[in-house]
Amino acid sequence: MREESRLMRWIWWTVVITAFFLVGFIIGWFAKPTHSNSSDDSASSRYLREFLDEMRPEKIREHLRKFTRLPHLAGTQQNLVYAEQIKEEWLKFGLDSVEMVPYDVLLSYPNKSQPNYISIVDQLGNEVFNTSLAEPVPEGYEDVTDIVPPYSAFSAKGQPEGDLVYVNYGRTEDFFQLQRQMGINVTGKIVIVRYGKIFRGNKVKNAMLAGAKGIIMFSDPEDYCAAGVQPYPDGWNLPGGGAQRGNVLNLNGAGDPLTPGYPAKEYAYRHSLEDGVGLPKIPVHPIGYHDAIHLLKNMGGQIPPNNWKGALNVSYRIGPGFTDDFKTHKVRMNIQTNNQVTRIYNVIGRIRGAQEPDRYVILGGHRDAWVFGGIDPISGAAVVHETVRSAGRLLSRGWRPRRTIVFASWDAEEFGLLGSTEWAEDNAKLLQERAVAYINADSAIEGMYTLRVDCTPSLHTLVYDITKQIASPEEREEGLSLYESWHKRDNWTNDRDAPRISKLGSGSDFEAYFIRLGIAAGRARYTKNKKTERYSSYPVYHSVYETFEIVENFYDPSFRKLQAVARVRGGLIFQLADSQLLPLDANQYAVSLSKYAQSIAQLAQMHPEEMKMYEVTFDSLFSAVENFTVAARDFHDRLETLDRTDPLQVRIVNDQLMYLERAFIDPLGLPGRPFYRHVIFAPSSHNKYAGESFPGIYDSLFDIENSANPEKAWEEVKRQISIAAFTVHAAAMTLTPPA
Amino acid sequence: MREESRLMRWIWWTVVITAFFLVGFIIGWFAKPTHSNSSDDSASSRYLREFLDEMRPEKIREHLRKFTRLPHLAGTQQNLVYAEQIKEEWLKFGLDSVEMVPYDVLLSYPNKSQPNYISIVDQLGNEVFNTSLAEPVPEGYEDVTDIVPPYSAFSAKGQPEGDLVYVNYGRTEDFFQLQRQMGINVTGKIVIVRYGKIFRGNKVKNAMLAGAKGIIMFSDPEDYCAAGVQPYPDGWNLPGGGAQRGNVLNLNGAGDPLTPGYPAKEYAYRHSLEDGVGLPKIPVHPIGYHDAIHLLKNMGGQIPPNNWKGALNVSYRIGPGFTDDFKTHKVRMNIQTNNQVTRIYNVIGRIRGAQEPDRYVILGGHRDAWVFGGIDPISGAAVVHETVRSAGRLLSRGWRPRRTIVFASWDAEEFGLLGSTEWAEDNAKLLQERAVAYINADSAIEGMYTLRVDCTPSLHTLVYDITKQIASPEEREEGLSLYESWHKRDNWTNDRDAPRISKLGSGSDFEAYFIRLGIAAGRARYTKNKKTERYSSYPVYHSVYETFEIVENFYDPSFRKLQAVARVRGGLIFQLADSQLLPLDANQYAVSLSKYAQSIAQLAQMHPEEMKMYEVTFDSLFSAVENFTVAARDFHDRLETLDRTDPLQVRIVNDQLMYLERAFIDPLGLPGRPFYRHVIFAPSSHNKYAGESFPGIYDSLFDIENSANPEKAWEEVKRQISIAAFTVHAAAMTLTPPA
Repeated sequence: MREESRLMRWIWWTVVITAFFLVGFIIGWFAKPTHSNSSDDSASSRYLREFLDEMRPEKIREHLRKFTRLPHLAGTQQNLVYAEQIKEEWLKFGLDSVEMVPYDVLLSYPNKSQPNYISIVDQLGNEVFNTSLAEPVPEGYEDVTDIVPPYSAFSAKGQPEGDLVYVNYGRTEDFFQLQRQMGINVTGKIVIVRYGKIFRGNKVKNAMLAGAKGIIMFSDPEDYCAAGVQPYPDGWNLPGGGAQRGNVLNLNGAGDPLTPGYPAKEYAYRHSLEDGVGLPKIPVHPIGYHDAIHLLKNMGGQIPPNNWKGALNVSYRIGPGFTDDFKTHKVRMNIQTNNQVTRIYNVIGRIRGAQEPDRYVILGGHRDAWVFGGIDPISGAAVVHETVRSAGRLLSRGWRPRRTIVFASWDAEEFGLLGSTEWAEDNAKLLQERAVAYINADSAIEGMYTLRVDCTPSLHTLVYDITKQIASPEEREEGLSLYESWHKRDNWTNDRDAPRISKLGSGSDFEAYFIRLGIAAGRARYTKNKKTERYSSYPVYHSVYETFEIVENFYDPSFRKLQAVARVRGGLIFQLADSQLLPLDANQYAVSLSKYAQSIAQLAQMHPEEMKMYEVTFDSLFSAVENFTVAARDFHDRLETLDRTDPLQVRIVNDQLMYLERAFIDPLGLPGRPFYRHVIFAPSSHNKYAGESFPGIYDSLFDIENSANPEKAWEEVKRQISIAAFTVHAAAMTLTPPA
Repeated sequence: MREESRLMRWIWWTVVITAFFLVGFIIGWFAKPTHSNSSDDSASSRYLREFLDEMRPEKIREHLRKFTRLPHLAGTQQNLVYAEQIKEEWLKFGLDSVEMVPYDVLLSYPNKSQPNYISIVDQLGNEVFNTSLAEPVPEGYEDVTDIVPPYSAFSAKGQPEGDLVYVNYGRTEDFFQLQRQMGINVTGKIVIVRYGKIFRGNKVKNAMLAGAKGIIMFSDPEDYCAAGVQPYPDGWNLPGGGAQRGNVLNLNGAGDPLTPGYPAKEYAYRHSLEDGVGLPKIPVHPIGYHDAIHLLKNMGGQIPPNNWKGALNVSYRIGPGFTDDFKTHKVRMNIQTNNQVTRIYNVIGRIRGAQEPDRYVILGGHRDAWVFGGIDPISGAAVVHETVRSAGRLLSRGWRPRRTIVFASWDAEEFGLLGSTEWAEDNAKLLQERAVAYINADSAIEGMYTLRVDCTPSLHTLVYDITKQIASPEEREEGLSLYESWHKRDNWTNDRDAPRISKLGSGSDFEAYFIRLGIAAGRARYTKNKKTERYSSYPVYHSVYETFEIVENFYDPSFRKLQAVARVRGGLIFQLADSQLLPLDANQYAVSLSKYAQSIAQLAQMHPEEMKMYEVTFDSLFSAVENFTVAARDFHDRLETLDRTDPLQVRIVNDQLMYLERAFIDPLGLPGRPFYRHVIFAPSSHNKYAGESFPGIYDSLFDIENSANPEKAWEEVKRQISIAAFTVHAAAMTLTPPA
């Protein structure tokens, strides 16, 4: 009996213990989350706040000061020194890895022993006037050596001599007007054009096509001086002795002219100079307005239309050549600039992504400058530096982004976006398969008015979202967000109630990433008031007067504008790298496509007769856009019910979002421009700086006017509409459920 | 005391129970797998066994019988009927979805009221001999209408008349020999060549380049009759009245000639016929050997070298023209074939992937046939049909593959791979981003000897693995695997101890997937003994004698060979779709690259002087291959320690494996062949059927011989070596850790 009861008790306790064990097991089993990396969006947004708060004006000032002390032209020793310094500091800030990535690309420098200049020569060949050999050096920099004088990089060498013809801005329409309305042929002449409105390389191309044997570009005060502002150093206007450097290539996205399509590594095959891409065949030279007066003041020929007149006290006569009094005087260009294969260095830093190391979010901007680079590019590079510092601080507090972040300090941007393009070529496969977005970081400020953003439509929503989380940098706007500040200054009147965002053109390092590879891209900077400030770019652009002091004294004394830009660029990077679902908006792409389709169809409707005759219709494009709109809406609707705890389901929709931009790439490229492959966006064929939508259709319509065979020209329009419609349809397919 | 002891006991038991609960909880916590879709490889391999076992010879026979009753040329009603039937049956078998996908492509048909033929005409223009208008119809098919007579699809129309010149197989080397050694110019002549050795389109291109105004192709018994075999229906040899149909395009991967690069949809822009891709400009016609005798027997001119002589009882004199007795006789071609934009239909079926619906494994083969298609393609289509049936059975038992499987019944393969290429163009973005592999399913049998596999190097290991799991179909080989059976018949002598696997060339529907898009691809079929059977292809190829009966009576009476091929193709698809880790082997790619690099460098070493003079070196390529080899080895080493329970980590390495083949694609394409973009593999420029490794280098070396400017030609060799080295380096990068 006692034995039995003891046995019973043991059985009892065994059962109880087992039951508790089992209950424990079951609770343990179910208590454990199925997957550990479920979204922790609240932690991420706390880190975002810390990330933005960490960026400090005084730090940005410090970075700007440090990297603008000496000239650091691409290919020079000083630019390598800065590269090494950046590498070291990025490592110190806490990046996981930083590497120097060299390429050997074609650069172009003036010949130090035979300076470039332009002369007026008399009948005996005496140089009766010579343009200046350098800009007056700003105070405090008198002892600096290695300031490269103003020149047009990649100019052909030569001493062409002849009569001048003035062609306004040297735009396509200016040359058309010259030839068709004024009846002037520039074959064998030297053209002189004012800087502004379009990329200088397009001016050079137009001059070559028109048959000119040389081209001079000058900065007119109308285009490079703001009203009521003193020339530097008393204000931020361009002094008369200042001139705009710059390359005059027509690369169309090729990168290094000698290695188009492939990275310029040691073993790379290099074309001969004659076969190089985009190199001008005529001499080119830039001058300031003091020198320009001497060339222009005695010009003869027709009186120009009013919109060809600048702000100099000269008559802006067209030529050819000088007035009767100076009939025997000619202009001679003396250009000794050399092309030279030179080593350049990108600095590439990385933060390894925690969950998706194979997804890349890139923040890239260039480091090389024509001289000091106070604005271009170091105002931007200082912002990148501060972003890296802030990210490093977060890393030290335990944060690690979901995806990999890549920081790039590009070299040789000023010589044709070479560093960024070579790296894109070198890493094309990885980028195509893995890059989520590219945020560009060139000059962070070009005016004092408000924010300016150019980006792909799928980033619009994120840009608005981020700017709402950033404080306005303007005085007397405490409590206002950057979004509100921006909105009240630059709101869209007839479209939507939001601040303006523009299309990306080119002229900076995002080009290869966006237009060639189809990676969602954007850029942000502080800008001028477009409505009231009519000058081009900013007055001292690419001159020796782009110093640290011009930023500190005029553009952003508090450095709060640069801080705001840092927060925009950094905020975009952060959200793209850390959000569980990619913050890309296909619906916004649909809205933009619809707008662009309307607009290109309207342009074609300027030829209603031919449209009928050649049976040209945009129906297929409209239908494709409609199709895309529905696919985008359905896609975002499905996201609402996505199981966010399933990492594969999340990855699959993120891949769809990432590859959306890629869907607009046509591997065959645009006609004659194999490295411009984006069917929706390309730099204008007439101005690299401007972004054109449906560029294939646009260019074919443009050619209608000038075609000897209109039927063939309209056939090309039809072909381009068909390609656009197909591409938009294909993009819609990428948004549908994958099986 | 008693109270205390009871209390103690309670405390004691509470502690014990709590401890057990905790132990239970902890065990429960850790016992639970972190993620539910961890590899269940044993379940998968059980299903593989069931999948292979389910495929039955009698079912394959049934499918073959069903789809070979009537002629079903692309673009005809009957081929649409078969398409609809396939769609219905695939749905019945259990696929998740099946759709018909139409395109409107350029096809080519004889003019029914003006048949094509070739005449010998006398001096008065009388036709003293005409070739036959059709093949004698095989027994049992006498009442069948709509048998298209032998013709060369896409031939130009015309009635050229002139002297014949015999040019052997019409290969590049044959024309070189004719022109350089024999001193014969074919300008304005009609050339006659025998079929075989190379793709007929290359013969036509060579004839055009040489200046011929027409080309006749005949089947010589030496090339289309096996020794000791009777002509059909008593055996499987080509009867004298049989002739080989086929297209004579030089598309180089363009697909529909009027819509190169884009799918031939309703809104697609179509080029004019003059601008169409690859259309021959001269008349072309095929004849059998009975007719050929009449054209050849009285030919005059030089006696040919022995290797130009076929097996007919004629002298194979070169010409031009006939012997003195028939000097006044000329040959006239009468070709009235029409090009015509015609609707074609692909059938696309899908099994949605359970975990990764956005990863596609494709099994595709064509349905259209020149006549009945007993071998080409229905022996292959029947195998696909059986694969679908077997997969459907598995689905009904609860299986669902990890990835999506796509089954395709292509149309208009015979007209230039049109159905498959248009679909690839239509879905290029999805395929580029999501396709894991493409397995081709053209004719499953072309001989009775053993297995033949052509595939990308990364599939070698899987092919060996799968064939080891399949039984030999040979009689008296019970217990032997297909691998063993294959190995003893076709082993590699000087390379490795394994059965031979060859490079992919072209000539079937994998082309756009592999060579244009860079998707890992392979094909498998039963073949002849290459060492002893010297005829081209198989004797009745593209004739009316390709019937159900030729398979049933001669090629595979038991249908076990077709079953074995079904299991190979199906097994590949299964493993690619269902393995947790993709069964792709980068190490094998490294081995192949190394072999190809050696071999192309050896070819160049045939010009040691010039190699020195022009400083041509393969060092960069060897170094890239070495780099790739290390990257591949390290990649597979890392796989050993992969945490397979982490779905993102698994996805990341699978993406690297999937994109490996893509890494060899150069978006700029091969010189002059924009749709051949694979840097490692392309169809030979001299024979579309053959695969060339490092085709860019190969072609540039070939051009050395014929270049007027050797320096420039060697520059191109150097450029191509540099592109190859870059591409291999870039591919290696895709295998390194992603961040």
